[in-house]
Amino acid sequence: MPITKTVAELAEFLGGTVRGNAEIVVNGLAPLERATSDKITFLANPRYASKVADTGAGAVLMTPGGESYGRTVIEMPNPYLGFAKLLTLFHTAPHPYLGVLPGSHIAENVTLGDSISIYPGACIGNRVTIGARTVIHSGAVIYEGVSIGDDCVIHANAVIRERCRVGNRCIVQPGAVIGSDGFGYAPDGRGYYRIPQIGIVMLEDDVEVGANCTIDRAALEVTLISRGTKLDNLVQIAHNCQIGEDCMIVSQVGISGSTKLGNHVTLGGQVGIAGHLTIGDNVMVGAQSGVPGSLAANAVYSGTPTMPHKEWLRAMAVVPRLPELKKNISILEKRIAELENRLAGN
Amino acid sequence: MPITKTVAELAEFLGGTVRGNAEIVVNGLAPLERATSDKITFLANPRYASKVADTGAGAVLMTPGGESYGRTVIEMPNPYLGFAKLLTLFHTAPHPYLGVLPGSHIAENVTLGDSISIYPGACIGNRVTIGARTVIHSGAVIYEGVSIGDDCVIHANAVIRERCRVGNRCIVQPGAVIGSDGFGYAPDGRGYYRIPQIGIVMLEDDVEVGANCTIDRAALEVTLISRGTKLDNLVQIAHNCQIGEDCMIVSQVGISGSTKLGNHVTLGGQVGIAGHLTIGDNVMVGAQSGVPGSLAANAVYSGTPTMPHKEWLRAMAVVPRLPELKKNISILEKRIAELENRLAGN
Amino acid sequence: MPITKTVAELAEFLGGTVRGNAEIVVNGLAPLERATSDKITFLANPRYASKVADTGAGAVLMTPGGESYGRTVIEMPNPYLGFAKLLTLFHTAPHPYLGVLPGSHIAENVTLGDSISIYPGACIGNRVTIGARTVIHSGAVIYEGVSIGDDCVIHANAVIRERCRVGNRCIVQPGAVIGSDGFGYAPDGRGYYRIPQIGIVMLEDDVEVGANCTIDRAALEVTLISRGTKLDNLVQIAHNCQIGEDCMIVSQVGISGSTKLGNHVTLGGQVGIAGHLTIGDNVMVGAQSGVPGSLAANAVYSGTPTMPHKEWLRAMAVVPRLPELKKNISILEKRIAELENRLAGN
Repeated sequence: MPITKTVAELAEFLGGTVRGNAEIVVNGLAPLERATSDKITFLANPRYASKVADTGAGAVLMTPGGESYGRTVIEMPNPYLGFAKLLTLFHTAPHPYLGVLPGSHIAENVTLGDSISIYPGACIGNRVTIGARTVIHSGAVIYEGVSIGDDCVIHANAVIRERCRVGNRCIVQPGAVIGSDGFGYAPDGRGYYRIPQIGIVMLEDDVEVGANCTIDRAALEVTLISRGTKLDNLVQIAHNCQIGEDCMIVSQVGISGSTKLGNHVTLGGQVGIAGHLTIGDNVMVGAQSGVPGSLAANAVYSGTPTMPHKEWLRAMAVVPRLPELKKNISILEKRIAELENRLAGN
Repeated sequence: MPITKTVAELAEFLGGTVRGNAEIVVNGLAPLERATSDKITFLANPRYASKVADTGAGAVLMTPGGESYGRTVIEMPNPYLGFAKLLTLFHTAPHPYLGVLPGSHIAENVTLGDSISIYPGACIGNRVTIGARTVIHSGAVIYEGVSIGDDCVIHANAVIRERCRVGNRCIVQPGAVIGSDGFGYAPDGRGYYRIPQIGIVMLEDDVEVGANCTIDRAALEVTLISRGTKLDNLVQIAHNCQIGEDCMIVSQVGISGSTKLGNHVTLGGQVGIAGHLTIGDNVMVGAQSGVPGSLAANAVYSGTPTMPHKEWLRAMAVVPRLPELKKNISILEKRIAELENRLAGN
Repeated sequence: MPITKTVAELAEFLGGTVRGNAEIVVNGLAPLERATSDKITFLANPRYASKVADTGAGAVLMTPGGESYGRTVIEMPNPYLGFAKLLTLFHTAPHPYLGVLPGSHIAENVTLGDSISIYPGACIGNRVTIGARTVIHSGAVIYEGVSIGDDCVIHANAVIRERCRVGNRCIVQPGAVIGSDGFGYAPDGRGYYRIPQIGIVMLEDDVEVGANCTIDRAALEVTLISRGTKLDNLVQIAHNCQIGEDCMIVSQVGISGSTKLGNHVTLGGQVGIAGHLTIGDNVMVGAQSGVPGSLAANAVYSGTPTMPHKEWLRAMAVVPRLPELKKNISILEKRIAELENRLAGN
């Protein structure tokens, strides 16, 4: 049974303002081109503003002051955020409360919150604590002594190793590994002696970890992913890293041991960062960059080794012309030699 | 009990032509150097043609018109393909029909085809459909509503999330994740608001997905991997991508959201491609390249940012000589200043 | 109950020499700044030598001849190795012998050594052999015919495919895949024909494999990881590779098919190596480098394509100045043209 809402109700939900008929009833969200009169649509990109004229939607979400073409509109400063919230409202359902399903493996002294779901094949170790409304999917393995907060989703075949801590509202995508041993060895003259990794990983509230990511436990203390940070798939965080709040770390990034990221740092796909560095707040690093040293806050960097992004763009524009530059230098050399000869001959 | 075949039978199987004794019987495939008279061997690389003279093999697979050194040969245009087909014929067996083994977890309203095998620890969600002769290995997790075709192999600990669709003859290597949530967030002024990812992933027929790959579900519609495309290990495909037919995507490639690949595209290892691009048919991109913009069809590219491959080779040849070029420019500058001085002094 | 040891006992254990009171008793290891009198600390980095004066520790591990500030010290040439060994001694416990726990899946004709632990949800296939004191965590899947040696740890959701062989004292982190099919196809005119991968992977003794690594089985024979080699997380080793002894392969490295590494090779994070190459003993390759050709032994390389590391550093220092160099060349050209004009005018 679909949810139905009046435009007035949606405007209140989104903190927006209605222009037009606030009593129109809609039951879902649809793109401008395909919306019917029982749907609300949204204009996030001003390039498509003229499509509002032709949409069949019952109402349109847009920025304040936009041309409504006579449509009923809800105005709000960030219609893209409104789109996301309506998508959640109309098209997602809370996970049903299933309890501990048969076929899951629950060890001893486990503390389970209310309204959880633990699927067949999930394995929960001794002394694990799981908060209310948290879902543990099939094949997820929670080692002993782990604590997981409320309203989390741990997807299938994710692994959280011993004693790691997960906050509230965290999402761990399938296959992610949290708390694997850090890569630490002491040369002993013949080969390598393994340094025990006795620390943990801590994910603060609202952290999300992508599919098949790997986050290593600290050697002695804590590898920390702070509140609100999101990791895309296949990201590697080495031992002892401290990642700040609300960072966006795109797929296949690798961060070496003991590096610290500030808050609101954005790393493009496949970026690599060396160990023991400090990356300032609000730094952005372009995709595939290699960061060999610490980076000052509030700036954009690119390249391997990294440099300011604009400098990198200018330098890269020259790279394809290097053979021509080399040739030009040779030509200049000959012309100078010719001039020198002529002057010497004077 | 090994399979035995006459050379005549093999020639018919491969669509090749016999020169020599078509009645020779062989029971397997072996390399030129190590084959015995009960084996067939193959010459795929003309560099090794002289080894045909000394092989102990009962017969040799080669291109038409090759020097046979008096051996019995099967001629076919692509002996490497013949090698692959004979390896399949002699050295692989169809997976045995084991049925639903004890220790697997089968939820409700599941539709299972004939002659399937589902191993202990595999988890099949509600309303899943699995086609005939498909094998689901231990620990694989198939979320609710997934459909998988005939003759597929889903290896251990692979995950296919809700409602995704897998065609016929697909192979998913261990640990691969299909249908994880796309990396989509709307900034809400303080942090990031998660955009629900309500689409799916569709793998068409004959798609193969490498170990620990990640393919994100679309935000609204379908992340598509078209017929015959093969992904190597640890490849990342972001949400809303459309990958064409018969593409070869080598290990650790990352493709950002909403990018479209044509047919027969080949991407070298560790390539990264930005989002919302179009890559034309038959494009090849060299390993580790970073693709910031769309690429025209039928060409080879390399570098970060990408350029035509030959241009890149020429540019890269200059890079190690940059310090020398810089010095040469300084020297020229001095020589010119000297000339200018002398002329000014005239 | 913590372990307690006298300084004399620790010196003997570490092969070091006591200066001071050998009868002091300690029960653990702590950093210089935070150690109390019942702890031993260590000075691995000479930069912090002055902190020895202020430490509260009962004893200090340091290199021979260091300033002791009146403290009891144990002298040994490599105090960092001593730290690692004491961390193991004081802060890790041998895994308890749990036997085959309920909820694990053990197929037929399995051979299990003494004092093993097999956790719930682990799946052991037919004819598998597992050595003494080996631990198989939840969700790990061991396909048929695999052999695993003594004192190994196979972490949760790792997969070891059919017939692969694992030596003694190997550690496989969660989610790692050993023995996935190599990426081999023969073009058949329309698409790609899969070449069966009938070989195996062999890990020799003391090999460690990071979380979510992928090591492909050989097409025909053996993908080999030799004694003592350590792989960090998310490393890809393609089919037929031969990796030497005591190599250190940092996270997200990809090595293409049939490449051979010597002994004691170190590869930085995100390095990519092309196929069919030979990398000599003791080679080091800097992070993110791309290796297109074989590399001679006992040298350090960087860059894409790789060059000697020092050459790369010098070349990279010029890259940000390329726009300036290009401009300088144009200026020189004008100055030369001016000189040529003046001389022509003479």
